Amino acid sequence: MFRPQIKVCDCTIRDGGLMNDSHFPKEMVRHVFSCLARSGVDVIELGYRNSRTMFDPAKFGLWRFTDDDLIREVTDGVEFAGKIAVMQDAHKAFAEDLAPADQSPVSLVRVATYVHDIDKAIHLANTAVEKGYEATINVMSISHAIERELDEALQQIEEETKVSAVYIVDSFGNLYSEDVDFYVDKFRRYLKSCELGIHCHNPQQLAFANTIQGIIRNVNWLDGTLYGLGRGAGNCPIELLMSFLKNPKFNIAPLLEAIGKEIIPLQKDIFWGYSIPYMLSGVLNIHPKEAMRIMALPDSDPEKVDYVSLFHRLGDV
Amino acid sequence: MFRPQIKVCDCTIRDGGLMNDSHFPKEMVRHVFSCLARSGVDVIELGYRNSRTMFDPAKFGLWRFTDDDLIREVTDGVEFAGKIAVMQDAHKAFAEDLAPADQSPVSLVRVATYVHDIDKAIHLANTAVEKGYEATINVMSISHAIERELDEALQQIEEETKVSAVYIVDSFGNLYSEDVDFYVDKFRRYLKSCELGIHCHNPQQLAFANTIQGIIRNVNWLDGTLYGLGRGAGNCPIELLMSFLKNPKFNIAPLLEAIGKEIIPLQKDIFWGYSIPYMLSGVLNIHPKEAMRIMALPDSDPEKVDYVSLFHRLGDV
Repeated sequence: MFRPQIKVCDCTIRDGGLMNDSHFPKEMVRHVFSCLARSGVDVIELGYRNSRTMFDPAKFGLWRFTDDDLIREVTDGVEFAGKIAVMQDAHKAFAEDLAPADQSPVSLVRVATYVHDIDKAIHLANTAVEKGYEATINVMSISHAIERELDEALQQIEEETKVSAVYIVDSFGNLYSEDVDFYVDKFRRYLKSCELGIHCHNPQQLAFANTIQGIIRNVNWLDGTLYGLGRGAGNCPIELLMSFLKNPKFNIAPLLEAIGKEIIPLQKDIFWGYSIPYMLSGVLNIHPKEAMRIMALPDSDPEKVDYVSLFHRLGDV
Repeated sequence: MFRPQIKVCDCTIRDGGLMNDSHFPKEMVRHVFSCLARSGVDVIELGYRNSRTMFDPAKFGLWRFTDDDLIREVTDGVEFAGKIAVMQDAHKAFAEDLAPADQSPVSLVRVATYVHDIDKAIHLANTAVEKGYEATINVMSISHAIERELDEALQQIEEETKVSAVYIVDSFGNLYSEDVDFYVDKFRRYLKSCELGIHCHNPQQLAFANTIQGIIRNVNWLDGTLYGLGRGAGNCPIELLMSFLKNPKFNIAPLLEAIGKEIIPLQKDIFWGYSIPYMLSGVLNIHPKEAMRIMALPDSDPEKVDYVSLFHRLGDV
């Protein structure tokens, strides 16, 4: 028996863009979009709508800005019953970069924020709603949030916004299932007027399991990416999530097509998935940037597998 | 707060041997054993004690038979406070291949069995106990067990043996957390005189999460392997499990040493870990042998990433 309220959101291009500065060829994104559309997924997030004043367009690819015209190029002619989304970082995006919704192919704006940027996030989300979009607020790095600030932020979201969902974002992949329960209970205590969402990372191989834990606790907005492509150890693999969900509108065959044709080839240039440096970041509850540096070393560099030194060094932070 | 009853069992050499016909160099096993001993792990399973009449010694390596003298070669002089184990397959091993326990470095015999071989398993386990060993019975392929037969087998184990623990073995990596609850409840209903154990596989990235679920449900014997090395998608990574457990006697640094020096280099020749062929085996609840064939194809073979055809072919079985 399936729960019709559940919405599955694909973030492959957006979160995957953190591994290659958002450089994906348009033909690749068009094929990925077409496969996702056929899979029955509810939301496809095609990239960041961040500001060119914050990211140098000479360094970052098109999907860091994800202009409406670019979206039209890769989606026009593809039948898709769901919503197209972009993400705005609360501290790196501006409300004026959104056209009125009726002039845009985007219908959902997801605002990612640290707890301490909550006022910026609320401003962005409210502007999006005023312009006719649906909006969510995605509370990043939840395992680093100071509880008193988090409580206040959740109260503010409830009182000051009309967002559709608020996400628990386990950026560091530090949560265990009991922690998911804890945060779901806390979010629910403050948020009476919207759905909850969950976005998990995989350093401890718990992204899918923690998403299931969210489902068990009535979280209805669920994020995943193809083959887990995403920062560091990556995300909840959407092919696992959609295999688990029983909604007959879902079809994993197009996901497998996209993985085989578009995602596996990326492994030549970037590494995501389980590895000891990412695992240590998750266990120690720290940002994966040092682990990403280690993973980018050539295989011939002995530092790459000197996990004991890395463990002692990271543990001292 | 930790639970002192919990025993962590490492199966790296035994389960990993399913990926290379148990061909590990003695020096490698000696180093792995020494690292595991320093980590504080409770049980180290060094291989199968299967019969040379069932496995050709010209094809299979030493760790398919794991003679007492071989164990002495790799463990003598290494301080280890835990137990050394071997595994006997109910349908491929004989009781006479065990010396009396007081003449052997082994102190635990783990008997792996399908439900339909339960009488063979009980005979092996009882012989081991008579000879002075501790024994467990590990019920393999639990997701293929016919319930009426499983119920009867559990009743028999309770009435006819003196084993220390009975394991739920998710050979196909098909279980979700709710299934773990279901089997734990069922096993507990019949088994009043022994502990429960759990041994998980990772096609759906749930091996660690399902092991945690077992812990939550009072399962006390927990299996893992270094970096998840094991058949198909592999096992619960023991470095994750021991990081999760709070027992101060555990130390993950030696595990990281073994992974960096001994396990990562194996990736040149064998592949284990998450991949779409293994994922499909888990989702479809089938043996990973077809997936293992696909994973062994050269990267240049287009069949290797033709996941859609594989999905349709496997789904018809």
